[in-house]
Amino acid sequence: MSKYALGIDFGTLSARALLVDVENGREAGTAVMDYPHGVLDEALPDGTRLPPDWALQHPNDYLECLGRIVPQALEQAGACPCDVIGVGVDFTTCTLIPVTADGTPLCCKAGFEHEKFAYPTLWKHHAAQSQATRMTEIARARHERFIEERGGRVAAEWAIPKIWQALEEAPEIYAQIDRYIEAGDWMVMRLTGAEARSSCLAGYKALWSKRAGYPDDAFFAALDPGLEHVIDEKLSRDVRFVCTRAGVLTDEGAALTGLLPGTPVAVAHSDAHVALPAAGITGKGVMLLVLGTSGCQIVMDDAEREVPGICGVVEDGVIPGLFGYEAGQCCLGDHFGWFVDNCVPASYAREAERLGVSVHQLLTERARALKPGESGLIALDWWNGNRSVLVDADLTGLIVGLTLATKPEDIYRALIEATAYGTRVIIENFEKHGVEVKELRACGGIAQKNDLLMQIYADVLGREIRVARSAQTTALGSAMMGAVAAGAESGGYDDIADAAAHMAGVREGAYRPDTAAHAVYDALYREYVALHDLFGRGGSDVMKRLKEIRGRAHG
Amino acid sequence: MSKYALGIDFGTLSARALLVDVENGREAGTAVMDYPHGVLDEALPDGTRLPPDWALQHPNDYLECLGRIVPQALEQAGACPCDVIGVGVDFTTCTLIPVTADGTPLCCKAGFEHEKFAYPTLWKHHAAQSQATRMTEIARARHERFIEERGGRVAAEWAIPKIWQALEEAPEIYAQIDRYIEAGDWMVMRLTGAEARSSCLAGYKALWSKRAGYPDDAFFAALDPGLEHVIDEKLSRDVRFVCTRAGVLTDEGAALTGLLPGTPVAVAHSDAHVALPAAGITGKGVMLLVLGTSGCQIVMDDAEREVPGICGVVEDGVIPGLFGYEAGQCCLGDHFGWFVDNCVPASYAREAERLGVSVHQLLTERARALKPGESGLIALDWWNGNRSVLVDADLTGLIVGLTLATKPEDIYRALIEATAYGTRVIIENFEKHGVEVKELRACGGIAQKNDLLMQIYADVLGREIRVARSAQTTALGSAMMGAVAAGAESGGYDDIADAAAHMAGVREGAYRPDTAAHAVYDALYREYVALHDLFGRGGSDVMKRLKEIRGRAHG
Repeated sequence: MSKYALGIDFGTLSARALLVDVENGREAGTAVMDYPHGVLDEALPDGTRLPPDWALQHPNDYLECLGRIVPQALEQAGACPCDVIGVGVDFTTCTLIPVTADGTPLCCKAGFEHEKFAYPTLWKHHAAQSQATRMTEIARARHERFIEERGGRVAAEWAIPKIWQALEEAPEIYAQIDRYIEAGDWMVMRLTGAEARSSCLAGYKALWSKRAGYPDDAFFAALDPGLEHVIDEKLSRDVRFVCTRAGVLTDEGAALTGLLPGTPVAVAHSDAHVALPAAGITGKGVMLLVLGTSGCQIVMDDAEREVPGICGVVEDGVIPGLFGYEAGQCCLGDHFGWFVDNCVPASYAREAERLGVSVHQLLTERARALKPGESGLIALDWWNGNRSVLVDADLTGLIVGLTLATKPEDIYRALIEATAYGTRVIIENFEKHGVEVKELRACGGIAQKNDLLMQIYADVLGREIRVARSAQTTALGSAMMGAVAAGAESGGYDDIADAAAHMAGVREGAYRPDTAAHAVYDALYREYVALHDLFGRGGSDVMKRLKEIRGRAHG
Repeated sequence: MSKYALGIDFGTLSARALLVDVENGREAGTAVMDYPHGVLDEALPDGTRLPPDWALQHPNDYLECLGRIVPQALEQAGACPCDVIGVGVDFTTCTLIPVTADGTPLCCKAGFEHEKFAYPTLWKHHAAQSQATRMTEIARARHERFIEERGGRVAAEWAIPKIWQALEEAPEIYAQIDRYIEAGDWMVMRLTGAEARSSCLAGYKALWSKRAGYPDDAFFAALDPGLEHVIDEKLSRDVRFVCTRAGVLTDEGAALTGLLPGTPVAVAHSDAHVALPAAGITGKGVMLLVLGTSGCQIVMDDAEREVPGICGVVEDGVIPGLFGYEAGQCCLGDHFGWFVDNCVPASYAREAERLGVSVHQLLTERARALKPGESGLIALDWWNGNRSVLVDADLTGLIVGLTLATKPEDIYRALIEATAYGTRVIIENFEKHGVEVKELRACGGIAQKNDLLMQIYADVLGREIRVARSAQTTALGSAMMGAVAAGAESGGYDDIADAAAHMAGVREGAYRPDTAAHAVYDALYREYVALHDLFGRGGSDVMKRLKEIRGRAHG
């Protein structure tokens, strides 16, 4: 009889359970469920309107999904709870839940349903930009170590700006919040009955470092006297390493999932970083390209190096013993979605219908027929700003080379190429600063489905790219965490490399660069870099001035 | 009984006749007919394929249209041939017809139907770029006066590069061509039986100047020994001024038109320049914006000044006694056509259908709702290169400021604004070099129909703009030339200013700049100029390198 590990992946819009055969990584059963409330970005469930840039969730959604998807996945596999040797959980991050002393989300307490600061803030809650901006300035002025390790700028998505926003804008609510906890850690606490804050979540989103701990209280006091003891009062210094066991299922945890009490549960992970072992990456120098609506590049190294413009480097942030470096692109697949929604003419829709294909397929086939350089276009892929390596949300998109002969597929291909050039900038930046990138792997929906993009990436980067075998790398990574939480004595593994050797891997074959295409892309990449530096490094600040003018026009 | 003047306007795709009441400018009858062969840009009528960049026409089309539209216009007006006191003709230019000694187009001679060099080359025949480029270099090296007067560069559209192309590429055909003649002059010759080469056509397209005549034979010899005597051998030094009589209808001319023999015919004019008197402009300092698929700015002055980046300045080129300055934008309405064809999504087409409006109307209304600066976009309007003031066909279009929130109407409005900024650059360039622009008028299809564009132009330029009263300024201008050819003794006018005072004018009202909008556009214009100079004056040559890379990809 097979032994299974269960991975539970909490995404932005839905949760997924994946039951994986521990011996060989076979995905035996899966189930997915959308959050009943989705993302609360216009109003609370009671109808209370939300300001712009807010993005909340309802924590009961997480539990409701959990209770449905775990039994469904088991049923699909024909497995019984006793076959599950361990459970791992990953979550979007930073998704921060304000809780009372017993761990109850404040919004679930009577009388707080209408209070927006009582709800979990999703990663894409961007309303704390003012706090993030001031925090960046103060950290730079104080030469705080963390700011250099995290690309030189505090993101509004991180934990401290969100907490500070509550303190500033709703001090009376803030006073009633006993603790803030990452949703991944909260879920593990609900399953195991005890808090076990993840080194990944604390490291990438809450300024924690294995060697230095948190910034000094003096730094937080410099932000706001009320924040001086925020770590001890609202967070925790007790951080647990990923790829270890957090605890075992309590009776309550068993009741929530339908699994057996005593089943081991891993420390929570982030939904991006947990994908590395699921793509078979457990050592240094192998970069994972996570290709979704936005893009993420994660690579591990055995030393800490200062790399400008990255999202962060966290020791033991991905797996123990290595430094996990993360860089990102604010906008990847979202470019293509924007293009299909806004720029594909009705004539293409009719032609796609006539041919019985999707508009996206038609566009892809026409773009595939173009040779590198044939469009005459270059774009800067900054429709949603630039995360790495410029760390500048005020940058915007650019296209140059347009003529009366430019067709939609020319622009579409130029957008794909631009994201590939952006990835190449990130990789070269890592290498320039001493972080080796000797191999590339990819995962995510785009890596699975868009072979045109993958081939363009190989041609632009001039490197072979292998794609993760699993289409659910995130949930698979969590299942692997469950297998490690169980340990070898329970039929699992004692370390993540063993788990990866058995449960993970890449597809047959690889996207290999075409020599001629790569040579053309080398020339085009030089043009991209020149434009990138011109508009991104101060040569021309037109993008910022246009945003200011736009802001004034909006009034 | 009314007396009429007849204007015949030969455009790119069709010919139009307009019968105008000489006393008051009332447009009594009009008729239009498409050329049966249209533009020959893929193949000759016999199926012979044409190389890229070729654009020919069939001269029989001109005569066939003539025979249909003149009687139709008379019939619509209820007029008889005896009521027509004079005829004027305008033509696209440079449209160059290779003819035999008796004026027969070579392509109409048996045995030449399959020979591309035997056909008239349309203005947009761009296959003589190599000759134009070499001619520019040689003229600059020799410090030829004409090159300074014509913006510093020879256009592939002009007469000499086209003639040189024939000499180089088909010397045996060239030897059988007795003369080259502008289509406007050829038409006048067919009507009157005698050649009367127009000062406008010779001045703007064949390097002729009232004071200096043609460049020396030594210059042509420097191009190619076979061209040394090209003016005397293939063209003519006998140039006649516009706004004068070329002759009267012969029996053959009467038969071609259905008019009476002896009817006066004016010297031919170009279809752009003849619009000035039709917009009531007969003096200096009033600029006409000709707003069509491409754009043209013409203004007169009483002195010759060196203005860089214009298309040319010709003494007596528009009307006698003044210097006509012409500048141009290679692409105006074509931008919007490109956008509607390639970038307006199916959802907009459905919405337009639901509302019962055209896609263009929907787009216009949505763009109208935007405030200046609200789109956050700036474009460089170089989809078809830049004519004035950069004179560079290798420049291409650019858009900056794109975000995930950018909508089609944002881009559409940005394209309109970009052409307005381009017009402002041209006007400021004239003023900087001493050519006064004290008033603006506009004509052409866009001026008549697109009030959003007109208001944006007024706001960007910070000036009032009046629109010509006639929707057919070109044909009206030719009719006015006919009235002047007739002269006062025949019921016409002795000079064009008299004709304009009676027959031409502007609409009631004007587009007036909004102060607040103009202030925002001042800031945006500064950004446009910075990008214009950066990409257009050598700061970044990325557009050229992309064209080179594209060329190699196609090659």
